[in-house]
Amino acid sequence: MTFALDHLGIAVKSLASAKAMYEKLGLSVSPEEIVEHEKVRLVMVPVGETRLELLEPTSDDSVVGKFIAKRGEGLHHVSLRVPDLNAAVQRLKNEGVRLVSEEIKIGAGGHRYIFVHPSGTGGVLLELVDSAH
Amino acid sequence: MTFALDHLGIAVKSLASAKAMYEKLGLSVSPEEIVEHEKVRLVMVPVGETRLELLEPTSDDSVVGKFIAKRGEGLHHVSLRVPDLNAAVQRLKNEGVRLVSEEIKIGAGGHRYIFVHPSGTGGVLLELVDSAH
Repeated sequence: MTFALDHLGIAVKSLASAKAMYEKLGLSVSPEEIVEHEKVRLVMVPVGETRLELLEPTSDDSVVGKFIAKRGEGLHHVSLRVPDLNAAVQRLKNEGVRLVSEEIKIGAGGHRYIFVHPSGTGGVLLELVDSAH
Repeated sequence: MTFALDHLGIAVKSLASAKAMYEKLGLSVSPEEIVEHEKVRLVMVPVGETRLELLEPTSDDSVVGKFIAKRGEGLHHVSLRVPDLNAAVQRLKNEGVRLVSEEIKIGAGGHRYIFVHPSGTGGVLLELVDSAH
């Protein structure tokens, strides 16, 4: 398993109108899911080997809700699958690259992830996820 | 040929520092290229089946330079390869989706492209490119 783009997270005000455009293009869109602890409603749009993740906040005080209030709709994060997450994090720490959290976190379904701070990536919030999830 | 994510265009102030982070992760980065008429210097970072395109403006009055002045560094566009660009554009026009230009344009190397306006995509400037390029 090598590097891959797992998904692109896109913050939208209205899931209904954003997903309609992708359906008009002929892409298929997953059923809606709600992630309670993140306070978002989302759909996935598979595109080739990767996916667009459309995220609508269910509350203004969620991370995605605050993002939209501050920056408007648009790309929220880029999620990269890496071959060995522990090694990647160690390498970035050794090189002084700023991470959003010190430790790898465990998400839904047990997948392991960490975020790299936008200051080191050209303004992109970069999620690294383990290939082994 | 079906849908695929061709590349993600990321506007950066410094190509040198942005590409260093991706190299630290263990990704390989293409040699620098300059696209004179777009006033950008760029590298491509292949990631699985897709690519990150890091774009540094060579002039403040370029499209990318103005973008950084207004919004800061970050994702500039998402480029989607579609099976039949003519048909896709016709479908979007019929549905009233706003495009940045009326007509498909021809870019470097003869590839055909058009941009969908961010108003219809959840704030993302979406480039559609023909699979046949």
